[in-house]
Amino acid sequence: MNIFDVVPQYAKMLHSIEGWLDKAAEHAKAKNFEIDTLLHARLAPDMFSLDRQIQSACDTAKFSAAYLSGKEPPVHPDTEKTVAELRARIQSCLAFLETVKEADVAGAEERKVSPKFLKGKWVRGDQFLLQMSLPNFYFHVTTAYAILRHNGVDVGKTDFIGGMPVRD
Amino acid sequence: MNIFDVVPQYAKMLHSIEGWLDKAAEHAKAKNFEIDTLLHARLAPDMFSLDRQIQSACDTAKFSAAYLSGKEPPVHPDTEKTVAELRARIQSCLAFLETVKEADVAGAEERKVSPKFLKGKWVRGDQFLLQMSLPNFYFHVTTAYAILRHNGVDVGKTDFIGGMPVRD
Repeated sequence: MNIFDVVPQYAKMLHSIEGWLDKAAEHAKAKNFEIDTLLHARLAPDMFSLDRQIQSACDTAKFSAAYLSGKEPPVHPDTEKTVAELRARIQSCLAFLETVKEADVAGAEERKVSPKFLKGKWVRGDQFLLQMSLPNFYFHVTTAYAILRHNGVDVGKTDFIGGMPVRD
Repeated sequence: MNIFDVVPQYAKMLHSIEGWLDKAAEHAKAKNFEIDTLLHARLAPDMFSLDRQIQSACDTAKFSAAYLSGKEPPVHPDTEKTVAELRARIQSCLAFLETVKEADVAGAEERKVSPKFLKGKWVRGDQFLLQMSLPNFYFHVTTAYAILRHNGVDVGKTDFIGGMPVRD
């Protein structure tokens, strides 16, 4: 399996989040509330709110692509206060993912991945991707989706999975 | 990247769910409620309840391993009514995953995967795994986790990610 393929998949999911935010905007308009209030919604008092879930999904995609490719990711200081600003962050991450090419990720299975929180220790690239990056990415993406749905936004499973390359 | 590695990763996550159910049992005992009432909890009226989330996580793991290996998965008629019965289902899926060996999955990237809902159409094995199986698996696993946490069960992010093969 080509480890590079995770990069366009992460981009696909970030695009999906943009679609969920479109639906959130429709819902806010229909119910006559300010959409940005949703950014403070959370599923438990000690879980991240929607804004942090989206920031974390962006970060997981960005840093994973950076670790696997050796490219420097864009810096985001977590200052977004509005949906518009979060959309800009998604766009910035998507632009970075676009710069990561298949050749940059060649051999990344054996690359030593050493995020800051490992304090100098490391994980093999393929184990990082499968056991840390993918679970963490989908954790934040799913929780963002669930917060929206918990708050009445009309997103469904098809909005989550997105289009598939189905063949006859 | 070795496509087979997803099989032990799915097993790892199913084991994690067992740990979350241990914590749910502690919480139910401390709060003096019947643990099985949690199985009806959901994050939105039109989302699956906890029992269906766990069944769906089991199914995604089981069918994915079956599609990629060509092995026949165990049948589960979705009749579980208790946490004990859901634990048995997890055990049954784990036992099946144990039977799937690396050689069974060799070349699965190019296997035609045709779940029933595709009505005869198909998706390439690697695209099925990355764009359908992994998002769907983590969707149900994360939502199960979020339902428990939303209901006060003391699970944390470390319980979600699990142990990692970190090296010096």
